[in-house]
Amino acid sequence: MEVIKLLEDYKEGSVSLQETLHVLKEQGIEDLGFAKIDTSRQVRTGIPEVIYSAGKTKEQIRQIVERMYHSGIDILATRASEDVFEVVKEVVPGAKFNQLAKTIVYHHNNQEKTEGYIAIVAAGTSDMPVAEEAAETAQFLGNKVERIYDVGVAGIHRLFSKIELIRGARVIIVVAGMEGALPSVLGGLVAKPVIAVPTSVGYGANLGGLAALLAMLNSCAAGISVVNIDNGFGAACQASLINKLK
Amino acid sequence: MEVIKLLEDYKEGSVSLQETLHVLKEQGIEDLGFAKIDTSRQVRTGIPEVIYSAGKTKEQIRQIVERMYHSGIDILATRASEDVFEVVKEVVPGAKFNQLAKTIVYHHNNQEKTEGYIAIVAAGTSDMPVAEEAAETAQFLGNKVERIYDVGVAGIHRLFSKIELIRGARVIIVVAGMEGALPSVLGGLVAKPVIAVPTSVGYGANLGGLAALLAMLNSCAAGISVVNIDNGFGAACQASLINKLK
Amino acid sequence: MEVIKLLEDYKEGSVSLQETLHVLKEQGIEDLGFAKIDTSRQVRTGIPEVIYSAGKTKEQIRQIVERMYHSGIDILATRASEDVFEVVKEVVPGAKFNQLAKTIVYHHNNQEKTEGYIAIVAAGTSDMPVAEEAAETAQFLGNKVERIYDVGVAGIHRLFSKIELIRGARVIIVVAGMEGALPSVLGGLVAKPVIAVPTSVGYGANLGGLAALLAMLNSCAAGISVVNIDNGFGAACQASLINKLK
Amino acid sequence: MEVIKLLEDYKEGSVSLQETLHVLKEQGIEDLGFAKIDTSRQVRTGIPEVIYSAGKTKEQIRQIVERMYHSGIDILATRASEDVFEVVKEVVPGAKFNQLAKTIVYHHNNQEKTEGYIAIVAAGTSDMPVAEEAAETAQFLGNKVERIYDVGVAGIHRLFSKIELIRGARVIIVVAGMEGALPSVLGGLVAKPVIAVPTSVGYGANLGGLAALLAMLNSCAAGISVVNIDNGFGAACQASLINKLK
Amino acid sequence: MEVIKLLEDYKEGSVSLQETLHVLKEQGIEDLGFAKIDTSRQVRTGIPEVIYSAGKTKEQIRQIVERMYHSGIDILATRASEDVFEVVKEVVPGAKFNQLAKTIVYHHNNQEKTEGYIAIVAAGTSDMPVAEEAAETAQFLGNKVERIYDVGVAGIHRLFSKIELIRGARVIIVVAGMEGALPSVLGGLVAKPVIAVPTSVGYGANLGGLAALLAMLNSCAAGISVVNIDNGFGAACQASLINKLK
Amino acid sequence: MEVIKLLEDYKEGSVSLQETLHVLKEQGIEDLGFAKIDTSRQVRTGIPEVIYSAGKTKEQIRQIVERMYHSGIDILATRASEDVFEVVKEVVPGAKFNQLAKTIVYHHNNQEKTEGYIAIVAAGTSDMPVAEEAAETAQFLGNKVERIYDVGVAGIHRLFSKIELIRGARVIIVVAGMEGALPSVLGGLVAKPVIAVPTSVGYGANLGGLAALLAMLNSCAAGISVVNIDNGFGAACQASLINKLK
Amino acid sequence: MEVIKLLEDYKEGSVSLQETLHVLKEQGIEDLGFAKIDTSRQVRTGIPEVIYSAGKTKEQIRQIVERMYHSGIDILATRASEDVFEVVKEVVPGAKFNQLAKTIVYHHNNQEKTEGYIAIVAAGTSDMPVAEEAAETAQFLGNKVERIYDVGVAGIHRLFSKIELIRGARVIIVVAGMEGALPSVLGGLVAKPVIAVPTSVGYGANLGGLAALLAMLNSCAAGISVVNIDNGFGAACQASLINKLK
Amino acid sequence: MEVIKLLEDYKEGSVSLQETLHVLKEQGIEDLGFAKIDTSRQVRTGIPEVIYSAGKTKEQIRQIVERMYHSGIDILATRASEDVFEVVKEVVPGAKFNQLAKTIVYHHNNQEKTEGYIAIVAAGTSDMPVAEEAAETAQFLGNKVERIYDVGVAGIHRLFSKIELIRGARVIIVVAGMEGALPSVLGGLVAKPVIAVPTSVGYGANLGGLAALLAMLNSCAAGISVVNIDNGFGAACQASLINKLK
Repeated sequence: MEVIKLLEDYKEGSVSLQETLHVLKEQGIEDLGFAKIDTSRQVRTGIPEVIYSAGKTKEQIRQIVERMYHSGIDILATRASEDVFEVVKEVVPGAKFNQLAKTIVYHHNNQEKTEGYIAIVAAGTSDMPVAEEAAETAQFLGNKVERIYDVGVAGIHRLFSKIELIRGARVIIVVAGMEGALPSVLGGLVAKPVIAVPTSVGYGANLGGLAALLAMLNSCAAGISVVNIDNGFGAACQASLINKLK
Repeated sequence: MEVIKLLEDYKEGSVSLQETLHVLKEQGIEDLGFAKIDTSRQVRTGIPEVIYSAGKTKEQIRQIVERMYHSGIDILATRASEDVFEVVKEVVPGAKFNQLAKTIVYHHNNQEKTEGYIAIVAAGTSDMPVAEEAAETAQFLGNKVERIYDVGVAGIHRLFSKIELIRGARVIIVVAGMEGALPSVLGGLVAKPVIAVPTSVGYGANLGGLAALLAMLNSCAAGISVVNIDNGFGAACQASLINKLK
Repeated sequence: MEVIKLLEDYKEGSVSLQETLHVLKEQGIEDLGFAKIDTSRQVRTGIPEVIYSAGKTKEQIRQIVERMYHSGIDILATRASEDVFEVVKEVVPGAKFNQLAKTIVYHHNNQEKTEGYIAIVAAGTSDMPVAEEAAETAQFLGNKVERIYDVGVAGIHRLFSKIELIRGARVIIVVAGMEGALPSVLGGLVAKPVIAVPTSVGYGANLGGLAALLAMLNSCAAGISVVNIDNGFGAACQASLINKLK
Repeated sequence: MEVIKLLEDYKEGSVSLQETLHVLKEQGIEDLGFAKIDTSRQVRTGIPEVIYSAGKTKEQIRQIVERMYHSGIDILATRASEDVFEVVKEVVPGAKFNQLAKTIVYHHNNQEKTEGYIAIVAAGTSDMPVAEEAAETAQFLGNKVERIYDVGVAGIHRLFSKIELIRGARVIIVVAGMEGALPSVLGGLVAKPVIAVPTSVGYGANLGGLAALLAMLNSCAAGISVVNIDNGFGAACQASLINKLK
Repeated sequence: MEVIKLLEDYKEGSVSLQETLHVLKEQGIEDLGFAKIDTSRQVRTGIPEVIYSAGKTKEQIRQIVERMYHSGIDILATRASEDVFEVVKEVVPGAKFNQLAKTIVYHHNNQEKTEGYIAIVAAGTSDMPVAEEAAETAQFLGNKVERIYDVGVAGIHRLFSKIELIRGARVIIVVAGMEGALPSVLGGLVAKPVIAVPTSVGYGANLGGLAALLAMLNSCAAGISVVNIDNGFGAACQASLINKLK
Repeated sequence: MEVIKLLEDYKEGSVSLQETLHVLKEQGIEDLGFAKIDTSRQVRTGIPEVIYSAGKTKEQIRQIVERMYHSGIDILATRASEDVFEVVKEVVPGAKFNQLAKTIVYHHNNQEKTEGYIAIVAAGTSDMPVAEEAAETAQFLGNKVERIYDVGVAGIHRLFSKIELIRGARVIIVVAGMEGALPSVLGGLVAKPVIAVPTSVGYGANLGGLAALLAMLNSCAAGISVVNIDNGFGAACQASLINKLK
Repeated sequence: MEVIKLLEDYKEGSVSLQETLHVLKEQGIEDLGFAKIDTSRQVRTGIPEVIYSAGKTKEQIRQIVERMYHSGIDILATRASEDVFEVVKEVVPGAKFNQLAKTIVYHHNNQEKTEGYIAIVAAGTSDMPVAEEAAETAQFLGNKVERIYDVGVAGIHRLFSKIELIRGARVIIVVAGMEGALPSVLGGLVAKPVIAVPTSVGYGANLGGLAALLAMLNSCAAGISVVNIDNGFGAACQASLINKLK
Repeated sequence: MEVIKLLEDYKEGSVSLQETLHVLKEQGIEDLGFAKIDTSRQVRTGIPEVIYSAGKTKEQIRQIVERMYHSGIDILATRASEDVFEVVKEVVPGAKFNQLAKTIVYHHNNQEKTEGYIAIVAAGTSDMPVAEEAAETAQFLGNKVERIYDVGVAGIHRLFSKIELIRGARVIIVVAGMEGALPSVLGGLVAKPVIAVPTSVGYGANLGGLAALLAMLNSCAAGISVVNIDNGFGAACQASLINKLK
């Protein structure tokens, strides 16, 4: 490592104090300072590299997948179409596609799962794609997941029949479109952190999911936080960080 | 009535056909045509004249109240401050002020109430002023009213303990601010028309009640309609029209 | 039923009071408690199950329709394309398609209609698809319906020539796009509840129907409530609940 | 005029061609070019100088009024408070204050009025301040004005009883808040240009007048244009330009 | 006319006063009352029937065109595609298509034009489709039109070279997208009514033309009014009403 | 407890099975079912009762505080003014006021704190009130807290000098107004859950905190979730739930 | 030049003073006055003519390109598709296409570049198209450019490793979508003018780039200004004007 | 400096290489690394520390001013009220207050000004406070400034008479409210960078300055960038960085 070399040279007297200071400032130290910070994305942020497929060409995805596969890196691609999966399968025959979630997953080795689980609760059937993106992401990150779907507030008894399963989770992801009321109802029934995911499901004054987003931000139940519209991936990332706390 | 007079004169020959037609067109008929429509606001729309106090001077209100009082018209003033009540009390000693609702009410005679009742459901204590405006208006219009307050979704068991009282109503007004989830939950539990009133209670991304308004418009429960933010009066008007259907 | 079994066991002494209480709490009671609430959607909310076709695959719709048809459940599908109808017709030869409304309807038996009727008033010819969705839904729910179309405010005499028909209704659905003025005009002429449906008809500063929606929410006529943009279905559900009040 | 002087000097030979060209370019011509355009604001745009009082100190207004008064210029101040009027009255004892319109007017001589008139139509009593600003401005600009107030769409018979007076105008200003429906109704009844003025009257989803503004922009009646919220002054300026066309 | 008949019968005694009144109210008067108002759209509003092609099927348009053509009514279709023109041409061989304006026009007889003209000013070449819609509409309504295109504020000298032509108009339509500044600049240079038309030309924070619309509503130049985004047709309707004032 | 009584009576034979079932259903069970759910807010949601002072009268607050104080419940009041504190101090002499946070706190006994800590990071000095509300709330809920203030992105070296302290937390609350960039930067540097709190600090296109809110929702760093604008309390509630996970 | 001719004629006496003045006013002077202003766009604004391809037909582009090519004018076309390039290549075989930037460039002669450079910094790979549009435009205008891509705030060490290269620039363009935080971070690290370009990269509450735009406008770092969403071209124009200052 | 001490100790052998590396990493280097970046805000960003008075108490401002004054730092306070000035004057008798700009300035020594100047152009008199904030800031930063006020687009000849003064600047700040058209007009007339500042001057659909902001972002003139609403300070900071480029 060059800082060591520099310090040794300085000790030996082959470089002056001024020069040492200068080099540390001009080149070495910044790299060093951030080397400490960087090492790798996974160590730094707890979340490994993931492929966001939307807006990438098939060729670009093939190249990324090849690099990751041959480096022994586990693969998660989100927002992937069937076409993208065709490409990935050629490179990684063992890859698995979740048509609803639009995710592609590949693990080089068997993955250990956490003991505690993340509950993924979805209001309606049309919210399932986002819920599945969250579920696949959470599993990819090594979390045990329980799916509780179609328990929207307009038929609230269905929610109650699953309440103990939800309460057993360490952290809960709640996915809802339209009026986005489910996180508020659930937030009043559980003593666990709730991450709310608004979806763009709806029409008219739904405003592409803004109605649900605003409702969730204004929840009367404390202990709820919100991610971007349709952002199942982001919710799962935070839930994973929480679930892995010891 | 002048049209009768005109027709009689015409029959007697004191006015010609042309003149009769002309008068009917120029003055009479339009009046007549709309007299049929008009007679009075109450007959026409089912809702009597009401004083919206906001933006009126005390002097203006005194004059309106005096005219109504001496014509034997029952009085409802909404959005009335304490100061306004002082003025009204001088003219109408029997007037009653609801400090929470900001309403002033006076009936010349005992009012008969409907048999069926309107349930007025409010999510939080801060939604009570709007709920009370609705309640006072509904009662003024001759409706029996049941108040069910502080049953917001974050403590949903409180709502369930009142569910039969709510179900017994002919029509339900649901008042809620913040995330506006209560109408959706209730809409899934009752088989009666629900009128949702968003309130401006909240802060930040609440946007002065728009968050609750949008949530209610996007409700996943069918059978719900919505009025303007903080419009307890309007909700009560529609509820009264519904409650009085035979 | 397991609660009965539990109570019998308890009486027999094979389970203790503590245990009985515990089981009631942990498993039995919740189910029981909500069984009372649930029974079925139709009983609970007054609105039966309906198929919202948008976003469903043809295969999903075929399966839902088959299940409903063979269970003797009447069928209403909204937002259905011609293609969807092809699929439904194979399963249910007697199904009827309303091309304008984009609805598919099938009744197993002759339906009884209400005596009172719902007036469905539409401002322009482009508002007719939403009006027809409302009309088909209202009829499906067993209501008599009167359609009064193309009576927008820019040619207000057409509205007046139909005013008595409108006044004869128990409840009025008013469908309008662009400036959304029709409900306000009508609200000043009738003494019946008015449910306003904004449509996304228009362009530019119409904002996908928000202009009409805002206008309706701010109506100067009391007794009006509003549903989501293009939500003819929702308006008909509420109108049906109102029309069926006795 | 200096250009004449320059040309004469040039002809006499006291300035060279180069210098003449240079002066024309550098100073003279631009002034000249725009003198043609400018002369005065009134000639250029048909609208004289007017004092917009909002945001000006009393001292600033006193100075402007003094300058105008002593130069023989007629005075119109808009958005003027009672306090501002006190100041103006000291300088211009003959000035008149319209408390509703918040306008101050002074004419040095008797004003001739146009033969044709501008109809100023207002929906509700709360729209009157904006209507009065328009009326005062139109009169100040020399127009005959007819005021038709309190003819909102929720009691449309009142509008019909005034329809011939409105039709007799050369141009119509329509002032309305809340749902802003009046211009559309009127636009369907008259064959004259309609200038719509949304007001900020209302609350909740009124959005400070945006609801009425959007409604007016989306009017289903052709022949309507719109000015800014509460901009009675601007509407009167355009109406005056139209009314004075020969 | 049936009212005359009724009145004659009444005079003759073959119908009673009561009956006459009843018939007048129930049938006759309303028709009559509004016959006065109605006669026809053109008489009532100064604007004849026009075909808005967007959202109509080719078959619908063919039927409308056939009816109008065979009734001797002049034809204007707006927002018409090439395909629509193919259909119209079959019915009306003499119809003319303006590809830029997307308008189809047919006159049965030679049209007389007004003496005064409408100036149609467009900022950029991409604003020309809207400007042409305005021009074609204005001409169809019998107005002389002068087109002044590509005179946007970023090259303001081009505007000045046309200023006298613009000033010669009785009314000016100004079409601009992006920042929508042209009406303000022009409003400061002319003493004629200016109707501003924002276009949806632009991208990003243009918000589909809202940026230009807001700019125009906030113009610092008095005497300007605004129509909806891309609404060349509406601007021409109002301009025509103004241009035809005597 | 009445359910126990009922079951005993049933066992004794004084009530039948049918009657027991009926009572359980009609009254008892629902209460019971929800008693299980309810018991107390703290058990149900992990967050005790808290006083939101905004919009409450001093008298209302005095009553709430008295009830809580005499019931031995610890007290947290948020959004409390100095005036409110005067009132509380009379009832609870030991109460402590944080002027910046606008919080009042009182504990009956010494509180045990968690071992792990919540890092509360604030971008600018004007974000400190919201950060302090979060800090006071988190401490009230029994959490150890580390404050790291004035480390905004415009002087990012200040953030880096505190990075190890931030990384040592179990969960991080990041409070920022204006462009709301700090959570994104931090989210890329830590492997712990980040809860972002937008503040209304700023002006102009800040839109009362919406700019920061939108920025945070769109963060390019995964593992971030967001609460409402200025909602330090809500962020602390969720952070506490996370921090207490074992 | 005709003004010279006119002045000579006037001096010779063949035109009178009146006539000279008249001609100067009516024709000559305006041309002259603005000739001074105009000459050409490049001289006037420092930016030559550029082809904005979006919304132009291939035929229109061919004609523009032919005119420019044969007049010896250098060519830059932005927002050009592959298809457009096919057309251009036929006319200008030497033209070069940047697929990412969607730009076509052709220079008749070798271009001299500025000594100082513009740094173009992009946050993510999806921001590259906009960054490349800026880079190609800046180079076309004669600027030396340094590209620093993929240095977004979620991995801030990458930015630091390039900080000296960025600091060496005379002006910095920063391109970022999503939360748009990069300009704020960079603005705190450099003493050069920063032009921020928000991109429409993102989804949900990104609102087509408005989230990033608002964040940039609210930057806590002074010395930053912003252009329209995705407007790499505009940013480069301003950067070029700055870079060429001496 | 401690790094120097550390390196000397290391050379002397009193600390090992490991320890030196460790200290450099853990404490020293980060400080050092950023010391290079930091030293002072002025060196780092070209903009010295400035006091934003809004939201600070008088006591806070007194303390900041005292610290700066006694450290020999020049003082600029923005958004300062008269009250604040009273406080500052006590500490710094030589401080100067600009009532319009709401700025307080104090220089310890005579300031050298740049040779080139910044032109500050304001559309209307109500835009002057923002323009003055920009002017005072620019001067404080050592720039020569030329003020060109009241040259809005509605009287464009006034702008032309100042065009050469504006063109002579190295960089131009253009301040405008209402429709925000001035930067577009100016951008088409000058070959210098233009920084546009929207102001909140206006009412109604002005939306607190958003109308002007959007107009400026959508300017059809290239070479324009925009800062936040009313942000004269920020515009001056960027202009200063540009003006000082050599």
